[in-house]
Amino acid sequence: MAKEIVITPEIEAYRREVAEIPYVSSKLTLDKPIELSSGDVLDGVEIAYDTWGTLNDDKSNVILIEHALSGNSHVADAYRKGRFAEGWWNRMVGPGKAIDTRKHYVICTNVIGGCSGSTGPSSIIPGTDRCYAMDFPVLLVKDMVDAQKAFLDQLGIERIEAVVGGSLGGMQALVWAKRYPDMVERCIAVATTWRTSAQSIAFDEVGRRAIINDPKFNDGHYTKEDPPAHGLAIARMIGHITYLCDESMTRKFGRTLIGDNIDFTMKKDFQVESYLEHQGYKFVERFDANTYLYITRAIDYFSLSHSLEGVTKRFKGTKTKFLLLSYSTDWLFTTSQMRELSDALVRAGAHVTFAELTYPFGHDSFLLEEDVQARYFKAFLEGGEDDR
Amino acid sequence: MAKEIVITPEIEAYRREVAEIPYVSSKLTLDKPIELSSGDVLDGVEIAYDTWGTLNDDKSNVILIEHALSGNSHVADAYRKGRFAEGWWNRMVGPGKAIDTRKHYVICTNVIGGCSGSTGPSSIIPGTDRCYAMDFPVLLVKDMVDAQKAFLDQLGIERIEAVVGGSLGGMQALVWAKRYPDMVERCIAVATTWRTSAQSIAFDEVGRRAIINDPKFNDGHYTKEDPPAHGLAIARMIGHITYLCDESMTRKFGRTLIGDNIDFTMKKDFQVESYLEHQGYKFVERFDANTYLYITRAIDYFSLSHSLEGVTKRFKGTKTKFLLLSYSTDWLFTTSQMRELSDALVRAGAHVTFAELTYPFGHDSFLLEEDVQARYFKAFLEGGEDDR
Repeated sequence: MAKEIVITPEIEAYRREVAEIPYVSSKLTLDKPIELSSGDVLDGVEIAYDTWGTLNDDKSNVILIEHALSGNSHVADAYRKGRFAEGWWNRMVGPGKAIDTRKHYVICTNVIGGCSGSTGPSSIIPGTDRCYAMDFPVLLVKDMVDAQKAFLDQLGIERIEAVVGGSLGGMQALVWAKRYPDMVERCIAVATTWRTSAQSIAFDEVGRRAIINDPKFNDGHYTKEDPPAHGLAIARMIGHITYLCDESMTRKFGRTLIGDNIDFTMKKDFQVESYLEHQGYKFVERFDANTYLYITRAIDYFSLSHSLEGVTKRFKGTKTKFLLLSYSTDWLFTTSQMRELSDALVRAGAHVTFAELTYPFGHDSFLLEEDVQARYFKAFLEGGEDDR
Repeated sequence: MAKEIVITPEIEAYRREVAEIPYVSSKLTLDKPIELSSGDVLDGVEIAYDTWGTLNDDKSNVILIEHALSGNSHVADAYRKGRFAEGWWNRMVGPGKAIDTRKHYVICTNVIGGCSGSTGPSSIIPGTDRCYAMDFPVLLVKDMVDAQKAFLDQLGIERIEAVVGGSLGGMQALVWAKRYPDMVERCIAVATTWRTSAQSIAFDEVGRRAIINDPKFNDGHYTKEDPPAHGLAIARMIGHITYLCDESMTRKFGRTLIGDNIDFTMKKDFQVESYLEHQGYKFVERFDANTYLYITRAIDYFSLSHSLEGVTKRFKGTKTKFLLLSYSTDWLFTTSQMRELSDALVRAGAHVTFAELTYPFGHDSFLLEEDVQARYFKAFLEGGEDDR
C-alpha cells in the first residue's frame, strides 16, 4: 500500500522551501517535577518537540500545535535524518500554508503519556531499569497542557500567538485558553468538544478492554517485539470507524468485494474489512498499547466544566480569541457540541468565530480538508493583527 | 441487576389472558435437506419454533415474526415450564397487542445458524459426535428464509397474512416478500435497510475479529463452559453502542461516575463503562460465539439487490403490501436508507406505507417503543381487511 510519489517540479520547488525553513527536532528534560491532577509527581520528564521557523526578537510569533490521539511532534514536513518526511498536518502547517512557518515559530510537542519521545508508560522509571507500564499515573488533558507550559517556561516563552489543535489537540488548545488566558492570544479548536460524551467514552472503553483482555498485554508488561497486537488493532479499528462516517465509507468502499463474487467466508470478503485490518495492524507498528490506554483515558476524563454555565463562568472576561470549527459529517465530536461551546464562550463575552464546514469525511476531515479550513485559519490569524 | 416486579391486579389480569392463549414451544425436523446459497446442503435441519393463538380453518391468519441478531423464537410472553416468561417483543405481540394473539396465529422460529434451538454451529453434525463449529456453512439471510419456508410447507401453511421483523428480522421479512410474493400478503419491516452499509459491515467485522482473536476461540472449538468470553463480550459491547445513540446514552448515563470523584484509573470509572461491561458479559451467558460470527456474516452479505433500480425491477407488480418504519435516532439503519427502499418499492407499483418515528433510543427503539409503532401496525394489519 506504499504510495509512489512522482516528484514534479512543483513538488521539488516546495521541498526546497521546506528545506529552507529552520527546523529543530529534539528533546528537553524539564528541570522541575510536574505535579499531576492525580496527586502523583513525575520527575525528570522528557518532552519531545519539533520547531519550524524563527522565534522573533520579542518572542511574539509562537504558534503551538497540539496533536490528536495518535499524533506526535512531527506536525509539518521536514527533512529528518536527511530524508524528506511528511508531517501529519502538512496541509495546514508549512511554508506558505495557513500556519506559515516563514512567519511563525511553530512548536509541536508530543504529549506526556505519549509514545513518540515524551515521557510515557514506555519510559524508564528514573533510578530503575524498568519502564512505567501501568504504573504510569493516569493523566488528564490538563496535565498534558501543564507539562507543555513547563516546557515553554524553560524555553523562556511567555506568549502564545495561537494554540491550535483538532480532536484531542482541540481539547488541549481549549485547556490552554482556560488555564493560561493571559498567555494565549488566540485559540483554534477544530473537530473537538467541550466534554467527551457518553458515546465516545463507550467506544474508548471497548478499545481499552480489547487491549487489556489480550493475553499478551500481561498487565502492561509486554515487550516492544511482542505487544498485544490483536487488542490494539481491534481498538484502532473501532477508533477508525468513528473517525470516518457512513457517507465516506460508502463512497470509499460501499459493498465492494475483494474478489469478484462473495466467498461465503468468515475471512475478509469486503474491501472495507481489508482496509480496516490494514489500518489496525499498521497502527500496532507505530503505537504503544499502554499509551493508547492512557491517552484515551485522558480524553474520557476531559470536560472543560460540569455544565455550559460553568464554561461561561470560567471564561468570563477572557481576552483570548477563539476560532471553533466543526465538520458536518463528524459524528464523534459533533457540530451541536461545538455550538454549545461557542454559545457558552459568547455568553462569557469572548471573541468567537464559529463555523461548521461541509466535508464528507467525518471526524478525520480536519486532517484531510485544506481549502475552507485553511481560509478560516488565515483570516483568523491575520485578521487579529490590527487590534493587538 | 434483576428487576423486582410488583404484581399489580392489572398485571395479574394480563397474565391470566396470556395463560389463556394457546401456546406451543417445540422443535420440528425438516423432512427435506436445505440447499444453501453457498452450494452446501444441510440435512436433518431442526427448527425451534413458538406459536401463539389458533390457526383458523382456512389457515389465513398466520403472522410470522422474524427475530434480530440476538433474538430467539420466544417473541411473546408465555408460561414456559410453568413460569411466566417475557417475550422479546411483548410490547407488540400478545393478547390485545398490535399483533393480537387472540386473532392471529403467531409463529416465530429461531433462524438457522442460530443458537436457540435451531440447527446452527453448535449443533451436532448428523452421523458424527462433533458439532459443526466453523464447519457450519456460511449463510445468507435468504437461506434463513428458505428454511422457514420449508418449515411452513411442512406445517401445510401456504399463506402469510403478515411477515414482521425489525433489524435482521426486517431483512428476513423483506426477503420473504422478495422470494415468495404470492404467499406474503403484508410485510412489516422496521429499523432495517435494503442493504447493509459499509459502516455496519465494519462494526460487525471488528466484533468478529475480537471473537476470532480470543485465544479461547480455538478456531470455533471451545466448550460451552469455557467460551471466548472476552471476545464475544467485546463484540456485544460494540454492537450495543450501535443499538443506542449519543442522545440516549447522554440521557441515560451522561458523564456520571460510578463513585463520587474521578478515580484516575484504567478500571471502570464511568457508569456507561459499567453498563457496557454488564451487557457484554451477560450476553456471553446466553449466546454462542460461533453463531455471532455466522449471523453477523449473513447480515453483512444482505442486499436486496445491487442497486435501487434492481429493487424496483425485482418487486415490479408485487401484490404484497409494505409497512416500513424507521426511527429518527437510528444511526445503524437510517431513515435515509429506508426512504430509498420505500421509493424503490413505490416505483415498482407496490402499496407502501412509510413513516419515520421519533423516539430517542436509537436502533433499539423498535424494541422499546410501543405507542406510535403499535398504531401503525394495527392500522396496517386491520386496514387491509376491507380490500382483500
